[in-house]
Amino acid sequence: MGACERLPIGVFDSGVGGLTVVREIRRHLPGLDILYFGDTARVPYGNKSPETILRYSLEIGAFLVGQGIGSLVVACNTSSATALGRLGEDFPVPILGMIEPGARMAVSKSRNGRIGIIGTRATVASGAYERAVKALDPGAFVTSAACPLFVPLVEEGWVDGPVTLEVVRRYLGPLLAQGVDTLILGCTHYPVLVPAIEQAAPGVHLVSSAHAAALDLRERLGPGTVPDGKPGDLRVFVTDTGTHFQAMGDLILGEPIPVLEKIEEERLVFHAK
Amino acid sequence: MGACERLPIGVFDSGVGGLTVVREIRRHLPGLDILYFGDTARVPYGNKSPETILRYSLEIGAFLVGQGIGSLVVACNTSSATALGRLGEDFPVPILGMIEPGARMAVSKSRNGRIGIIGTRATVASGAYERAVKALDPGAFVTSAACPLFVPLVEEGWVDGPVTLEVVRRYLGPLLAQGVDTLILGCTHYPVLVPAIEQAAPGVHLVSSAHAAALDLRERLGPGTVPDGKPGDLRVFVTDTGTHFQAMGDLILGEPIPVLEKIEEERLVFHAK
Repeated sequence: MGACERLPIGVFDSGVGGLTVVREIRRHLPGLDILYFGDTARVPYGNKSPETILRYSLEIGAFLVGQGIGSLVVACNTSSATALGRLGEDFPVPILGMIEPGARMAVSKSRNGRIGIIGTRATVASGAYERAVKALDPGAFVTSAACPLFVPLVEEGWVDGPVTLEVVRRYLGPLLAQGVDTLILGCTHYPVLVPAIEQAAPGVHLVSSAHAAALDLRERLGPGTVPDGKPGDLRVFVTDTGTHFQAMGDLILGEPIPVLEKIEEERLVFHAK
Repeated sequence: MGACERLPIGVFDSGVGGLTVVREIRRHLPGLDILYFGDTARVPYGNKSPETILRYSLEIGAFLVGQGIGSLVVACNTSSATALGRLGEDFPVPILGMIEPGARMAVSKSRNGRIGIIGTRATVASGAYERAVKALDPGAFVTSAACPLFVPLVEEGWVDGPVTLEVVRRYLGPLLAQGVDTLILGCTHYPVLVPAIEQAAPGVHLVSSAHAAALDLRERLGPGTVPDGKPGDLRVFVTDTGTHFQAMGDLILGEPIPVLEKIEEERLVFHAK
């Protein structure tokens, strides 16, 4: 990615959840300019078919490449799991997904080689994390669970309390029963639930793919500079606006997000090479 | 609607939840042919902006009118609450929404004139049910609550059990504290949660807008006939397919749903008159 480091980086997700990745990037590479794209009109991707997820991902990739980005971070695990290879074929910029960095960090952290993966229905069904972990450690035991209620809980702001803890327990129970000592949070929304997950799974290493991807990006780009002492610019494009997205964005990013710039869906067009 | 009764009826919803309305229509008007459209690629509508909901509704209305329907049932409460008036201006067929029938049944059932409304964030924010109830009974007391976790719970198949009951209690608590004796289930998914809602709100009249709309339709069309003893045809169009939608559709419809017919989003175009 070295040659492109002066250009802004593009980051996209199905909604505002990918701002957890932006937050990590700004923490580890504060000087980078970032163009974020949240497909808020078509969120969530996690229950959709691979064909639909691929089409949406290609449309957004084409939009961001058209904005002059130097590299692209696919902050959506569902999209990373189903569309990353194809995005790499179609766009002339380096592309970083969530799966490989998360899998690498999990393999390095696990002591007993038993790794659990949680994500959306589509991410889990893709088997992408399992393949990535097995490629790094063929002897690893890997088990996974789809947690479709986690994203709605975060979006409702119910990040702790008895309901959330009970939902977390119900999803994680089968994984813990299989002795996993490391758990990959394979969805950008899930880091918001870490306190509840820690309570339900004490002593288990939690791997945030958002955090792992930001570290990976820093390794590829070199540490970011802070020109004139200023942090990099952040622009946020969305396909649908609403006060709810703005409020949720602030919560997830951990700082006030800029005014949302609405992109009409008609502008999202992908022409295969 | 009298002149159009030989033509199929169009029914649309953001996803497969509107099959609760189809189920009621088939129960009360078994002879009708039905074209159902579920916008499964862009589901849910409940968190989206009014502009986006209107655009999607117009696109689907145009598609169904192009298929030769004689009347249109907007089975999506969110769309009924935000787009019904505009749909009526743009399409040359009678249009029936969810709001008016649900409000009328609630007013007729309530003994103390205190009516609660639950729905998606967008439905509640629109104030459409409140206005409809107040138009019928200006002295009514109306209070409402958005329940964004209900749809994900139904879609996950968690329709009873402690988590669901606790979520129901938490959302309904403030309404019950205000003494409502009647509750409008202002979202097509909610009838699936009736056992949990009855447990959390004993003695409260529950009004299903799906049921109310089917009765309203029968009143307008006259009782359906069953030609040759056969029930009417049902075709199901969707914007995204997947085994999950098929399984959920069976659950919600209460009979096996036909093979899903996928409509590419490019075909969904609306040109204003």
